[in-house]
Amino acid sequence: MIELVILGNGNVACHLCSVFEKSNQVLLVQNYNRRGMQIPNCNVPVVHKVNEIRSADIYIIAFGDNSLHNLSNFKTLKGLVVHTSGATNMNVLNTFKNRGVFYPLQSFKKEIPVNFNDLPIAIEANSSFCEKLLLNLAKSISKKVYSINSKQRKALHVAAVFANNFSNFMYTQALDICNEHQIDFSILKPLIEETIIKIVSNSPKDTQTGPAIRKDSLTIQKHLDILHSEKQKKLYQHLTLAIQDYYGKEL
Amino acid sequence: MIELVILGNGNVACHLCSVFEKSNQVLLVQNYNRRGMQIPNCNVPVVHKVNEIRSADIYIIAFGDNSLHNLSNFKTLKGLVVHTSGATNMNVLNTFKNRGVFYPLQSFKKEIPVNFNDLPIAIEANSSFCEKLLLNLAKSISKKVYSINSKQRKALHVAAVFANNFSNFMYTQALDICNEHQIDFSILKPLIEETIIKIVSNSPKDTQTGPAIRKDSLTIQKHLDILHSEKQKKLYQHLTLAIQDYYGKEL
Repeated sequence: MIELVILGNGNVACHLCSVFEKSNQVLLVQNYNRRGMQIPNCNVPVVHKVNEIRSADIYIIAFGDNSLHNLSNFKTLKGLVVHTSGATNMNVLNTFKNRGVFYPLQSFKKEIPVNFNDLPIAIEANSSFCEKLLLNLAKSISKKVYSINSKQRKALHVAAVFANNFSNFMYTQALDICNEHQIDFSILKPLIEETIIKIVSNSPKDTQTGPAIRKDSLTIQKHLDILHSEKQKKLYQHLTLAIQDYYGKEL
Repeated sequence: MIELVILGNGNVACHLCSVFEKSNQVLLVQNYNRRGMQIPNCNVPVVHKVNEIRSADIYIIAFGDNSLHNLSNFKTLKGLVVHTSGATNMNVLNTFKNRGVFYPLQSFKKEIPVNFNDLPIAIEANSSFCEKLLLNLAKSISKKVYSINSKQRKALHVAAVFANNFSNFMYTQALDICNEHQIDFSILKPLIEETIIKIVSNSPKDTQTGPAIRKDSLTIQKHLDILHSEKQKKLYQHLTLAIQDYYGKEL
């Protein structure tokens, strides 16, 4: 049984507490957070003083990225200490003898449930012993565990911003345009789902369609005429030019 | 039995020929295309001279948008004449007594199969008689048929560009970043699928996460440092600013 303490009460910390509390291979000993807030949907004992943190095999520090650069309060922690940040190097934990990274590749919101079973977890550790321990921890909740180094993880984090945050913002623009013209956004949902099905079985590079890649200037102009918001127009133009530039040599 | 002729041999025309050939309620009489090319996976008789086009109840003109503005060669067509363009007004067909629009809301590629059953089709016609005929045609292949006017359809077409073309381009950027760093793109697929599941059950407006909306300038700078391509950097910056501006009042 791996003994685990989770530090933090943000989105990632809350989801991790909730899933590890249910695992048979892990004992979730404690949660620490500064204000001693209870974790939603989780009965784990919570402490708010550093000196009350109990000993464990692994400590997951699920703080915001900016808080990872000052961990001097936690220097007494023994065991394997890991952070959960995609964009932060493992060496931010250099003061700890046993260190690593436990990066669940998902966009977390507290109120939206997460299926950890299929959720990729990227791990890294500073020794093969620590890596094995972390691998066992990750495999207790997910079928998809990958060992990758800090540089790859950072690149993966940027890729995830494009694949998740930026694409989501495109869907928000689509929603706003529908609302403005009294169109039910659900008309677009099959198209969105189909986009994803195509990507999973093909490469997105090969599934690009639309007026930008066709260099259909008539349609592009019509679209710009319909968009009322100057910001939306600029976004449309920037993306259209970027697509044309990207496929330029092939067109 | 509705008698149908389909004009054109582009992506939309080919998929429509293929699905209507299988329909029990529709008789696909003919395909016309300029060069008399056979339609892949479809046994419909093909003609390339306008005077060989046979009479039918409905003619679907599935030409590119730019070709819809010069249809004088086809002025002898009797019956209901419709185009398939999301971005083109119905009145481009004003020389035809019975006219309409049959707009399947999907991004078509010839080699990728389409499930028409769940594919939304937006229709418009210039009389209730024509609208009913078009409704029957659309319902013979899809469960999701919507009557919308030309202005709404244009807006829907722009929304679809954001929801499909632009989001797809984001996935392509993610793929390129993964390839550059020897990361298997499939690590990102669960995240992409989860993004879509969230949108279908929530509003994308409420599911936005990431460094842009968090105004996490440290991570944003790290990401810009990792991106090698100047174009990718500019795209990242434009989208980050657009997200921050959009959510600005709420942050």
